[in-house]
Amino acid sequence: MELLRLGPIGHEIPVVRDDDVHYDLRPLTTDINPEFFAEDGIGRVRTALDEGGLGLLDGAEGLRIGAPVSRPSAVVCVGMNYAAHARETGAEPPKAPVVFFKMPSTIAGPYDRLELPPYATKVDWEVELGLVIGTRAFRVASAEEAYSHVAGYVLANDLSERRFQIEESGGQWSKGKNLPGFTPLGPWIRPAAEVDPGSLQLRSWVNGEVRQDSSTSDLIFDVGQIIHQLSQTMPFEPGDVILTGTPQGVAMSGKFPFLTDGDVVEMEIEGLGRHRQAVAVTQ
Amino acid sequence: MELLRLGPIGHEIPVVRDDDVHYDLRPLTTDINPEFFAEDGIGRVRTALDEGGLGLLDGAEGLRIGAPVSRPSAVVCVGMNYAAHARETGAEPPKAPVVFFKMPSTIAGPYDRLELPPYATKVDWEVELGLVIGTRAFRVASAEEAYSHVAGYVLANDLSERRFQIEESGGQWSKGKNLPGFTPLGPWIRPAAEVDPGSLQLRSWVNGEVRQDSSTSDLIFDVGQIIHQLSQTMPFEPGDVILTGTPQGVAMSGKFPFLTDGDVVEMEIEGLGRHRQAVAVTQ
Repeated sequence: MELLRLGPIGHEIPVVRDDDVHYDLRPLTTDINPEFFAEDGIGRVRTALDEGGLGLLDGAEGLRIGAPVSRPSAVVCVGMNYAAHARETGAEPPKAPVVFFKMPSTIAGPYDRLELPPYATKVDWEVELGLVIGTRAFRVASAEEAYSHVAGYVLANDLSERRFQIEESGGQWSKGKNLPGFTPLGPWIRPAAEVDPGSLQLRSWVNGEVRQDSSTSDLIFDVGQIIHQLSQTMPFEPGDVILTGTPQGVAMSGKFPFLTDGDVVEMEIEGLGRHRQAVAVTQ
Repeated sequence: MELLRLGPIGHEIPVVRDDDVHYDLRPLTTDINPEFFAEDGIGRVRTALDEGGLGLLDGAEGLRIGAPVSRPSAVVCVGMNYAAHARETGAEPPKAPVVFFKMPSTIAGPYDRLELPPYATKVDWEVELGLVIGTRAFRVASAEEAYSHVAGYVLANDLSERRFQIEESGGQWSKGKNLPGFTPLGPWIRPAAEVDPGSLQLRSWVNGEVRQDSSTSDLIFDVGQIIHQLSQTMPFEPGDVILTGTPQGVAMSGKFPFLTDGDVVEMEIEGLGRHRQAVAVTQ
């Protein structure tokens, strides 16, 4: 099954899709948000589906697809988590997960237009496996146990403006990670029980040309290690989003131009669907 | 006037204190939170006070003092913003504001006990002038205009674990900034109209000995410059908290020991009150 939020920005309807049929989740929850995950939302949806207790959502195909989770308390990102990507940026692979944050307000729908201010001239794409936390995770004892805290997985674009991230940041990356719309998520969250996060192909394209093509099997720190290690120093709450890092093939490598007006970015992860953002430079 | 939240953790009552009298704000707002600031909460409190429309809160003195703002969407911190502090950590003063994030869940009351896991052996204090955003701030045109986006000011301790922040972080500071309770705020928010943020004395003590003693007049980037410059690359929302950096006198300088079980940290900013955290190392 896939969890989605459909409708205009700020008015999305919580939806579950099962065998290509859309069901309206509003009798079960007001939204797919931190409270939903804290109250075992996925388990309750599964039960409701099994019992045939959900009504169909008519006209689902005509609705905008929003991000599949609303306003987590934190969006935590792991950087330099693919060895080949670390090398393309001129860095050594890290010895422990490297962490930066994005504002939850950067979350956007997977097909929303990306509007850039004219001075954002070094905007780069990053396809990433994202995960949504289901139960509070603090001082988790092992990488194996960590997986029990994952509610589901989601495709993410960790958009980055490299001038603010690298050149004018004093070395702290978050500064270039928070322009509006910089975290497209979706189209859906797939429950953890239906995903093997250890070997997913992830790819990105710009204007139809392949940019990234890798597998989560190349992650330096896998999902379990990320949660286990980071939970020693920061508590994750239900609904929190963790982005696990991007593989090689970004513009910062010098091999491709940064994004500009009229470009189209697409990305895809096996089983987690596809994104498409059209870039528009505005005044 | 001072805005406070009084009562047990998770059940704080919104309160305004005016001329040492506590008034109950529950008829006016459910909480002092992002929605409160988005709906001109401070203006509405001022009007209600002027019209004599608020009831007294009995027994206010006996209640726990909570953090004066509930769950902002972001806690954004400026690092290395006092020249002498930059030098004591071995860094050059930055050319533009340096930014990292804390999880909103790290916010704690100003007198809450600080419980540390046993492996957090390099915990350091940082007294800072904090501010709360009143109106959305994105691409603010000037440092002068930026002040109109500030709802009020608050005393903050930006607690930091230096091993996670510096030694095992790959250089990204946020990793050492997010243990539970790592952002004591309060006791109150004072409205921006009643504060001159440009020349406030700020001090900290450990076990009664002075550690930091400086003035916001020594800030490299002042409040207006921080909001103006950062708003070019990240949008601030009502209720968001910005911490403006800490002056010299922290343990990382090598002059003082890190915090340990039984220590007491106190800090104070002119007009913004005083903090006191007792440190307890737990298993």
